[in-house]
Amino acid sequence: VRVAGSNRDDTWVRIRTAGVDLLFRQGYEATNTRQLAEAAGLKPGSLYYYFKSKEEFLHRLLVDLLEEILADLDAALAEVRDDPAHRQLDAFVRTLVKWHVQRREETFIASIEIRSLSQDRHESYIALRDRFDSTLEDILDRGIAEGEFSLAWEGIARNAILTALTAISGWYDPRGPLGVEVIADEFVLLTRRMVGMTDEPRRGTEPRKV
Amino acid sequence: VRVAGSNRDDTWVRIRTAGVDLLFRQGYEATNTRQLAEAAGLKPGSLYYYFKSKEEFLHRLLVDLLEEILADLDAALAEVRDDPAHRQLDAFVRTLVKWHVQRREETFIASIEIRSLSQDRHESYIALRDRFDSTLEDILDRGIAEGEFSLAWEGIARNAILTALTAISGWYDPRGPLGVEVIADEFVLLTRRMVGMTDEPRRGTEPRKV
Repeated sequence: VRVAGSNRDDTWVRIRTAGVDLLFRQGYEATNTRQLAEAAGLKPGSLYYYFKSKEEFLHRLLVDLLEEILADLDAALAEVRDDPAHRQLDAFVRTLVKWHVQRREETFIASIEIRSLSQDRHESYIALRDRFDSTLEDILDRGIAEGEFSLAWEGIARNAILTALTAISGWYDPRGPLGVEVIADEFVLLTRRMVGMTDEPRRGTEPRKV
Repeated sequence: VRVAGSNRDDTWVRIRTAGVDLLFRQGYEATNTRQLAEAAGLKPGSLYYYFKSKEEFLHRLLVDLLEEILADLDAALAEVRDDPAHRQLDAFVRTLVKWHVQRREETFIASIEIRSLSQDRHESYIALRDRFDSTLEDILDRGIAEGEFSLAWEGIARNAILTALTAISGWYDPRGPLGVEVIADEFVLLTRRMVGMTDEPRRGTEPRKV
């Protein structure tokens, strides 16, 4: 069953793809719904069926993305639920690297354009996004409690880890030599070091989850 | 001597302060030069003496800031020119933490609004900004060559360090409990760990440079 506006609705997927391309290349302010309709091969009036304003489109795009990433993160963490905290940190890091590389245009838009949301939408978006922060906090808390991690100012380290991960979409170059696995491996190493572990993963011997 | 438009020109300082406040609170797109003149207590026509367009103002603001930070960084690094690479890394980190905390509004504007610059101005700005990257690269190269640092993918670590530092202006809360010294100390620790040093700075025993 194709629900209109669901991710199985071909027209919505086409609008979404065109929108991501426009917003990534020229930004939210410079984009209007007429351009969006044209890029998706639709009449301007057809968009009204999917959203009532440009801002509603942006909100939908960002919330859908966040929910996809959170669901993927929950699944990755479920697999290592009973493992030591550093394995959960690895899964957290690998999941965020993967999304910021493979969906770099959308994650980049999210990092730049959330200010364009109205106050209510901005607040509900931030509340949802804060789940990354609280999930990482739980992992760090556990690693510290169990003596695996050593951090004097957990909040600063948490911000440093999270911002370095989300910034990948800003510098990753799909035409460059680095693939997602190399970046994920290196970030696993860097974050293990940041939390004070000296027991580093041996390259190529660990199961890859990217 | 007060050169018009120099940092010793009171009127320019007033325009600049008002502009930083407006751009930080409401963003570049939502700000116009009429509001800027009003906030600075000037007639709209007076601004023309200082810049010909909103974009020229933004460019001036961002380039001035970058040049101030680069001059401060050069001075900080000159003091540790003959020290081991990790001392240069510390100086680099402390300088960037300081600017992103104490001038968080301007550094935040810089991180968000560079896309609003015209192509020529954008390119010259990026060329100047790349000096942070090449300076950090020199420090990492030296640390690796001298055996102090251990990094498999230097470019990934460099991006991670630089983006974590520049992201501070996005999360730092001037009403929060963390002062610039605590953040600088913790970032020195985190970056030393990231480059593979196990010889960590002992808190409170090192000369503070913030």
